Amino acid sequence: MSIEQKIRASFDRQAMMATIGAELASVSEGQVVLRAPILESVTQQHGFAHAAVSFALGDSAAGYAALSVMPEDAEVLTAEMKINLLAPAAGDRLEATGHVIRAGRKLVVVGASVVAFDGGKARDVAVLQGTMVPFYPS
Amino acid sequence: MSIEQKIRASFDRQAMMATIGAELASVSEGQVVLRAPILESVTQQHGFAHAAVSFALGDSAAGYAALSVMPEDAEVLTAEMKINLLAPAAGDRLEATGHVIRAGRKLVVVGASVVAFDGGKARDVAVLQGTMVPFYPS
Amino acid sequence: MSIEQKIRASFDRQAMMATIGAELASVSEGQVVLRAPILESVTQQHGFAHAAVSFALGDSAAGYAALSVMPEDAEVLTAEMKINLLAPAAGDRLEATGHVIRAGRKLVVVGASVVAFDGGKARDVAVLQGTMVPFYPS
Amino acid sequence: MSIEQKIRASFDRQAMMATIGAELASVSEGQVVLRAPILESVTQQHGFAHAAVSFALGDSAAGYAALSVMPEDAEVLTAEMKINLLAPAAGDRLEATGHVIRAGRKLVVVGASVVAFDGGKARDVAVLQGTMVPFYPS
Repeated sequence: MSIEQKIRASFDRQAMMATIGAELASVSEGQVVLRAPILESVTQQHGFAHAAVSFALGDSAAGYAALSVMPEDAEVLTAEMKINLLAPAAGDRLEATGHVIRAGRKLVVVGASVVAFDGGKARDVAVLQGTMVPFYPS
Repeated sequence: MSIEQKIRASFDRQAMMATIGAELASVSEGQVVLRAPILESVTQQHGFAHAAVSFALGDSAAGYAALSVMPEDAEVLTAEMKINLLAPAAGDRLEATGHVIRAGRKLVVVGASVVAFDGGKARDVAVLQGTMVPFYPS
Repeated sequence: MSIEQKIRASFDRQAMMATIGAELASVSEGQVVLRAPILESVTQQHGFAHAAVSFALGDSAAGYAALSVMPEDAEVLTAEMKINLLAPAAGDRLEATGHVIRAGRKLVVVGASVVAFDGGKARDVAVLQGTMVPFYPS
Repeated sequence: MSIEQKIRASFDRQAMMATIGAELASVSEGQVVLRAPILESVTQQHGFAHAAVSFALGDSAAGYAALSVMPEDAEVLTAEMKINLLAPAAGDRLEATGHVIRAGRKLVVVGASVVAFDGGKARDVAVLQGTMVPFYPS
């Protein structure tokens, strides 16, 4: 099973990703892109996508970026993640790009950025920085 | 309109809260509690609630805690939020308690903790620390 | 060697702590307190203690709090730390209290708060939340 | 007074920067570089530069990067900063590059990276992500 197949299989088991309408847009070594429409069902009180949607996409993109540089039998869990929100997540859809900052044996430091698209217009809405912990299910 | 009514009205406009099944459990000055079942629709690939659910509950509880100590015409937005995950969010339901650490005029520093309940057994699953920005819609 | 002796010996090897004038005020299981005067040599451009001093004290207090709950042969390193600054660090001296939020085998989640004293008047100046990684030097 | 002169004057008033031996290496719009030797006086118990030194350099580089894109009468304070440590800060000297991620009117989101040099060999030791608050002293 290729790394992309493994990540795609894992992504498909995440009900949360289906709930927010997310899809896996691309996988390369150390970088993963996710996309999701801004559904009415994920908005907050001002009508923008809830911060938790940017978090969900950024965190998952970063986690899969970590997975993309690890041994085939590894899994990862988020240890911690920080998000800075740059602008309201307004528009049609969100795109999150996760990348690996440093891959250690015990910890993988990752980053992600989230962009909102309104028609053809792009706007940065969030940046994330965090830590993934690899583990090896027996 | 009391602060609790204002917060309840804002909460009810957050479609994201309905999507994850959250309810507003209690509001007091500087502290707000939210609850949600762990729905199948919000799980990640290992069957636990996705980190984004703990984030959504903790961030919203913290934001409403900030709102509870502010003038009636104020609204808040999350500027940044950091979450440390302590244990897998396994069980029946999650409860998030948000509190105010320091309420300034320009920024409100907040914290939140998230607990998972499995039957009667409680387990800390996340702690959050972040910043809310008050604004005054005209 | 007791845990307090081990922590005191480690603290005494930290030249940075001497440079900022810090002392180890108290050690108990899961909680460590450090103190330092606000020296002219650690100020920033507005005359307050530099944010890095609150960081140094909070991070070290939190790290030693983690060490206080671990096996005798363990050491810890900071994996990540986030600081929210609540007020300018003005006054005579700073006191940082570090505590353990969750002690895991691979990661220890910690918190710290920093208070400035101006004569007898206390003011919260910072809160920190972060992750320590235990390791076992051979 | 040019932006570089303003930043240099502010830097020279920071006693903390002199204490750790830091110098202002370069200023351009949205990016500032600081350098410091790894002095014996700033080490921790394992002989590496204390995390607070990487924090001090990264935070200050990021703060000055924010200042470089703001009106001449503005000052900035750190609201919050998160640091992920990537490797021990071993070697001769550290170099921190701060940059602006998004410059808003009320908040400036910033990032920084810190590299350690051991002779000619460079190693990433830390990444930071945080928020600066502009203010206008009268």
